[in-house]
Amino acid sequence: MKIQIINGPNINLLGTREPGIYGAESFERCYEDLKQVYPSIEFSYFQSNVEGFLIDKIHEVGFDCDGIVLNAGAYTHTSIAIQDAIRAVTAPVVEVHISNVHSREEFRHKSMIACACKGVICGFGLDSYRLAVEALTGMKK
Amino acid sequence: MKIQIINGPNINLLGTREPGIYGAESFERCYEDLKQVYPSIEFSYFQSNVEGFLIDKIHEVGFDCDGIVLNAGAYTHTSIAIQDAIRAVTAPVVEVHISNVHSREEFRHKSMIACACKGVICGFGLDSYRLAVEALTGMKK
Amino acid sequence: MKIQIINGPNINLLGTREPGIYGAESFERCYEDLKQVYPSIEFSYFQSNVEGFLIDKIHEVGFDCDGIVLNAGAYTHTSIAIQDAIRAVTAPVVEVHISNVHSREEFRHKSMIACACKGVICGFGLDSYRLAVEALTGMKK
Amino acid sequence: MKIQIINGPNINLLGTREPGIYGAESFERCYEDLKQVYPSIEFSYFQSNVEGFLIDKIHEVGFDCDGIVLNAGAYTHTSIAIQDAIRAVTAPVVEVHISNVHSREEFRHKSMIACACKGVICGFGLDSYRLAVEALTGMKK
Amino acid sequence: MKIQIINGPNINLLGTREPGIYGAESFERCYEDLKQVYPSIEFSYFQSNVEGFLIDKIHEVGFDCDGIVLNAGAYTHTSIAIQDAIRAVTAPVVEVHISNVHSREEFRHKSMIACACKGVICGFGLDSYRLAVEALTGMKK
Amino acid sequence: MKIQIINGPNINLLGTREPGIYGAESFERCYEDLKQVYPSIEFSYFQSNVEGFLIDKIHEVGFDCDGIVLNAGAYTHTSIAIQDAIRAVTAPVVEVHISNVHSREEFRHKSMIACACKGVICGFGLDSYRLAVEALTGMKK
Amino acid sequence: MKIQIINGPNINLLGTREPGIYGAESFERCYEDLKQVYPSIEFSYFQSNVEGFLIDKIHEVGFDCDGIVLNAGAYTHTSIAIQDAIRAVTAPVVEVHISNVHSREEFRHKSMIACACKGVICGFGLDSYRLAVEALTGMKK
Amino acid sequence: MKIQIINGPNINLLGTREPGIYGAESFERCYEDLKQVYPSIEFSYFQSNVEGFLIDKIHEVGFDCDGIVLNAGAYTHTSIAIQDAIRAVTAPVVEVHISNVHSREEFRHKSMIACACKGVICGFGLDSYRLAVEALTGMKK
Amino acid sequence: MKIQIINGPNINLLGTREPGIYGAESFERCYEDLKQVYPSIEFSYFQSNVEGFLIDKIHEVGFDCDGIVLNAGAYTHTSIAIQDAIRAVTAPVVEVHISNVHSREEFRHKSMIACACKGVICGFGLDSYRLAVEALTGMKK
Amino acid sequence: MKIQIINGPNINLLGTREPGIYGAESFERCYEDLKQVYPSIEFSYFQSNVEGFLIDKIHEVGFDCDGIVLNAGAYTHTSIAIQDAIRAVTAPVVEVHISNVHSREEFRHKSMIACACKGVICGFGLDSYRLAVEALTGMKK
Amino acid sequence: MKIQIINGPNINLLGTREPGIYGAESFERCYEDLKQVYPSIEFSYFQSNVEGFLIDKIHEVGFDCDGIVLNAGAYTHTSIAIQDAIRAVTAPVVEVHISNVHSREEFRHKSMIACACKGVICGFGLDSYRLAVEALTGMKK
Amino acid sequence: MKIQIINGPNINLLGTREPGIYGAESFERCYEDLKQVYPSIEFSYFQSNVEGFLIDKIHEVGFDCDGIVLNAGAYTHTSIAIQDAIRAVTAPVVEVHISNVHSREEFRHKSMIACACKGVICGFGLDSYRLAVEALTGMKK
Repeated sequence: MKIQIINGPNINLLGTREPGIYGAESFERCYEDLKQVYPSIEFSYFQSNVEGFLIDKIHEVGFDCDGIVLNAGAYTHTSIAIQDAIRAVTAPVVEVHISNVHSREEFRHKSMIACACKGVICGFGLDSYRLAVEALTGMKK
Repeated sequence: MKIQIINGPNINLLGTREPGIYGAESFERCYEDLKQVYPSIEFSYFQSNVEGFLIDKIHEVGFDCDGIVLNAGAYTHTSIAIQDAIRAVTAPVVEVHISNVHSREEFRHKSMIACACKGVICGFGLDSYRLAVEALTGMKK
Repeated sequence: MKIQIINGPNINLLGTREPGIYGAESFERCYEDLKQVYPSIEFSYFQSNVEGFLIDKIHEVGFDCDGIVLNAGAYTHTSIAIQDAIRAVTAPVVEVHISNVHSREEFRHKSMIACACKGVICGFGLDSYRLAVEALTGMKK
Repeated sequence: MKIQIINGPNINLLGTREPGIYGAESFERCYEDLKQVYPSIEFSYFQSNVEGFLIDKIHEVGFDCDGIVLNAGAYTHTSIAIQDAIRAVTAPVVEVHISNVHSREEFRHKSMIACACKGVICGFGLDSYRLAVEALTGMKK
Repeated sequence: MKIQIINGPNINLLGTREPGIYGAESFERCYEDLKQVYPSIEFSYFQSNVEGFLIDKIHEVGFDCDGIVLNAGAYTHTSIAIQDAIRAVTAPVVEVHISNVHSREEFRHKSMIACACKGVICGFGLDSYRLAVEALTGMKK
Repeated sequence: MKIQIINGPNINLLGTREPGIYGAESFERCYEDLKQVYPSIEFSYFQSNVEGFLIDKIHEVGFDCDGIVLNAGAYTHTSIAIQDAIRAVTAPVVEVHISNVHSREEFRHKSMIACACKGVICGFGLDSYRLAVEALTGMKK
Repeated sequence: MKIQIINGPNINLLGTREPGIYGAESFERCYEDLKQVYPSIEFSYFQSNVEGFLIDKIHEVGFDCDGIVLNAGAYTHTSIAIQDAIRAVTAPVVEVHISNVHSREEFRHKSMIACACKGVICGFGLDSYRLAVEALTGMKK
Repeated sequence: MKIQIINGPNINLLGTREPGIYGAESFERCYEDLKQVYPSIEFSYFQSNVEGFLIDKIHEVGFDCDGIVLNAGAYTHTSIAIQDAIRAVTAPVVEVHISNVHSREEFRHKSMIACACKGVICGFGLDSYRLAVEALTGMKK
Repeated sequence: MKIQIINGPNINLLGTREPGIYGAESFERCYEDLKQVYPSIEFSYFQSNVEGFLIDKIHEVGFDCDGIVLNAGAYTHTSIAIQDAIRAVTAPVVEVHISNVHSREEFRHKSMIACACKGVICGFGLDSYRLAVEALTGMKK
Repeated sequence: MKIQIINGPNINLLGTREPGIYGAESFERCYEDLKQVYPSIEFSYFQSNVEGFLIDKIHEVGFDCDGIVLNAGAYTHTSIAIQDAIRAVTAPVVEVHISNVHSREEFRHKSMIACACKGVICGFGLDSYRLAVEALTGMKK
Repeated sequence: MKIQIINGPNINLLGTREPGIYGAESFERCYEDLKQVYPSIEFSYFQSNVEGFLIDKIHEVGFDCDGIVLNAGAYTHTSIAIQDAIRAVTAPVVEVHISNVHSREEFRHKSMIACACKGVICGFGLDSYRLAVEALTGMKK
Repeated sequence: MKIQIINGPNINLLGTREPGIYGAESFERCYEDLKQVYPSIEFSYFQSNVEGFLIDKIHEVGFDCDGIVLNAGAYTHTSIAIQDAIRAVTAPVVEVHISNVHSREEFRHKSMIACACKGVICGFGLDSYRLAVEALTGMKK
């Protein structure tokens, strides 16, 4: 089983950036944990601050892998283009967020991409990624 | 570990009700599976179509159990009273939905209770409940 | 032919409550008239001020009877849960109102349940119930 | 008893136009049925695609007849001028619709004329016209 | 000096229609008074309930006369087409209303045509027409 | 003089629930104080988390008692049905809130029931109840 | 006959201020003309940039004079307090504007005071004041 | 104990102004009553129609007195500047209204100053002032 | 191939009307050019300022011709009735505009009829008509 | 004559992506056809999923070529930056869409770039590109 | 060079008022610093809590001085009258704010006066005034 | 002291692009001036049309430099991602605009990034950059 993890803008600063909201752990540590917990899954990881490069990556992997775990960061709330990219490919996409976006500013309550995803998981810190992987493996059964 | 599952309006008809959206499996089957998969967890289950009885139940268990998995059904989108009930208790609450509410009607996109929950999981069919249990166990570690 | 009449909040006070808007006749009188006018129809009647009990009743009768005449009162304008209950059952539902809701306050102009009903009849006083019965019998032909 | 039926824009194409929404029967058939079912009522019928001609007709008959059955079609949702015409005359007006406008596009949910009518009947196909006649006869008692 | 008076929908019923709002005097009486008060002005009068015929008339007279007094009735609040007609001609147009539209329903507060007119006069009963004529003569000086 | 106090959802947890907002004192203590301060008034008390049961109680006492002190909790902001219940009875109703709802979330600024009440008192902690009793006694004079 | 003219903020700069919109003539000239044209009317004039002083003046003259010509300037669009002052007195008030406010910025289209006035006259330059005096004399007849 | 009462625009006309809404009693009578009922409290009174003078007064007394009873009249619904003045001083402020603003026009439902006040009392006629004094004395205990 | 061209309100004044926006050429010239450029196409032309006559024409030709080029003028932005007429017939309809409606007033940005048309062409002056004919011939291939 | 075609996000997947909406033909085929149909025009083609690269390209060619055919994909509905880029250059830009955006989701009805373009063509499948080229050649005459 | 500084409501309490937002320094200190830093500039200073007096001052100095530094306080967000005053005079006006209004409540994000000013400077504490003076001197060069 | 200047989309065309709005001077000239006026400050400059590259640059320099002068161009009004980037770093950011965005289109009045910046300076042409540098040096004192 092949799963692609895609992180959007500012998530490269995880651990450094507003630790009160996002926690003090970097994503790299989380990624290593995932590979250990799910040794039979082949993971790939991509991060970019450029909306178009996220779309490029979704196109590149979206017909081959078994699922995409997508944290589109702030583009979640504005990008119709990423919504279209998700609809354009065949792999199921799970939208994840580290923080509970619904207890933050009003403009973070609306997702422009959720309607094109299989489902949404948010609010569980970095554990949201593990739950997304669980969700994708659940779909395979 | 004690986990309370609370289902709101119309979920008692699961399996019968609009199977194109909610699937053909009843919740009872899902509940039995959960008890088998997590034998060390003590589960309780409650369903009501009455908003106030959901609040009563949250009050009753919300100081004792280790987590609540809450599918508030249509009350999700209108109930400030349930939001207040969640804030009033100490147990973490995970909001779940069977369908992906974001790909349905506009009025299902907004949750009035998510801001008071720990996190949200939606769109994975009945597997959403298992993921919520995973999320609660993840918080215990 | 079996028809269930369901009245929502405050309709138990009909005849007493704001007679300038709702008239001075109680619903019981109207109900007796209906049974006389349509002797071949088996009528049942239920009233509750509790949104969830209205849903319970829709579930209970909604697979067996030939039609539901539903005056959801003020819940008409706010209840997604009743909308979902109507969609969940198989009997056709006719939304009725005693007063012409469109000539009253703005917040009474929008129905959250009409989209799930077969049709709507409003503004004809208690005669709205007879017209709803006529509408249900018209569907049977 | 004299009843005027007035149909607005595009209803002349009934039977031909979008039969999935409006049915395959023309209005003429329905009109003949009404005359047979209510032989003691003197019916008149008028159809126009011109908003102003509908107003002319309401003016012409609105002081003499015992009731108007008005399907204003798409003008229902935009015409303050028809609302004013209804207020200007003395005959009671019943707004009817063939389809359930509340389960269609958002812009069909609002009626600009309902507030000036006696009541509204919608969603019962061509039987909506018979119910409107019933409603008008009910007012006479 | 040539002045065209144009009245829109339902104003033909003036004197009959909702006298509490519009008064009990017909427009004809007002028109005779105007001709007496301003003998040197050549008046013409036109009324129609058809939006398009109002536009036709504006086109017909709008390059020749010295001013148009326009009471577009309910079309005032919805007609971009009349706005465009006013812009298309060279004669100055004065928007008039018999009632004070600002103390009535919300939807009568907005004029779609005022922005294309020279000015607006409303609320003075039939005297609004005399004031409009005064305004047009004032412009000539 | 007979006064009914009615508390809505989550107020049963007063003293426990979010003490930073609602204070650490339970309602029972406040109720005992009221009975001592106003020995000549016959008080009754009712609390429910169920919207419909609040309506039932308003119906039950609303024709007999001299006033109702109503803290409808979160239903304040959403319940047209409680508004209708208040209009349906004859006793004057005073809306109270413990916290100043206007300095909290936007959705707590609008009351759906205030328009049907005699007046509103909010922001004075449990002393709001005493002020409401004062207001009702002031009306008797 | 006694008529009070009240001008609001910035109208003291008339003739100097944005002549493209308001013209190059000062209000004083217009005021002298009015006194000449209507020698039998006793005019008074007041201008202030202070909203409260406009209210003071309306209170002072509003029970004695036969009419008030009010150009509230920018306060037209925001002042509920002036609306209340107009309602509080007995003299009829005519709202005037020099420019056609409807062909300017969106925020100038809405008047907060028109609903309390007898009528509105706008767009005729300084001639709007003469028309307002005509309107007041028309009411006396 | 020192309490300042501040009344905003148009309240100087109380007793004269729209008695159907505000009653026929002047504020002076109410003020005398308060001084009699609470002989140990040192009252001061100020009224102005000028928003800025209300702010001046709040500044002047807001660091010395034990409480301010503020009826800001129509400025309640528009004045951010008064909100800021209330926040700038240390004395608690109670917002009062004579009428129940929530049963009047939509634009009177929103208070711009309530969020900065201790609490709000409205709808009890002139008794609202006594209740506000009660509220301030309640805070002292 | 038969193509019907339908022009809506005010387009009869083309060449005269606001030449800065619509150009100085009349439609007749453009129509002659089209007939020369596409000699094998049988063109018909209709113009009316009456919304209902545009609908009549769409009904009349909409089952026979191979395409309709429709410039509904200002009715584009308000007419649900024309939208319904387009849906009711079988010929493909191309919406055209001479000016670029998107660089004009906000209320011209929304088309009520575009959703029922095959496509939209706007902004190319009278050449928009030629492009619409090209579009219809392109569909035939 | 030099024409630049610029395609935005996801259009690289044309033929593969949601063929029910966008058709099964790739853009390459369409591009070859254009070169054959217009041999005298020098075409260039650019596609990117990155908003900023689309801007770079508009800058690069927008002072030299004779026209730009721009399908900005989903950025059409959100990008003020592309609007600014179009305004910054001298070449005329024609906005095109393959599908009829007005019959799709609400958020696709508004174009943020149309106001800066020469005109808009949408809904004709890949033929929209040919029509845009026709429009640009029409401007040259 | 002559520069007028005008401060609006509540700024007289600077140093005392909400020091967490506005700092603990009074404006007088800042004013003395400015005079020292720019000895060649002739400064004047005016503060009022009365909107109309701010307008009076703008009128008084707005044709003579070389620039106005205006902190209109809360009137910034509501005053069309001050906007009009700024447009009425010839001196350039710079809008300043001590706090960053964009990181505060929603109603402070919109300025009603910025569109009439030369520019805006906000968020730099009392240093905002110095920057405004710099901006005005920059314009002179 | 190290200051980074970052310019967003289309600012590379400064001097060429819409000189009526942005002036005829290129940014390079302005940058040279800044280095001369503030010789002790170490300036760096970056421009990109790609939203994500602006974020990359903010990340790269935002922990080291003493301040960022950011003109995000059109992304100012839409980019939550840049807002997040500003919050993620430690250097103070000053938002600048060359034109006065508040006197342009409505969609340029709202800044999505201002709430995360230290302050905002707009409307002073290229001098806005110098003022931003002044602001940053003012913070150091």
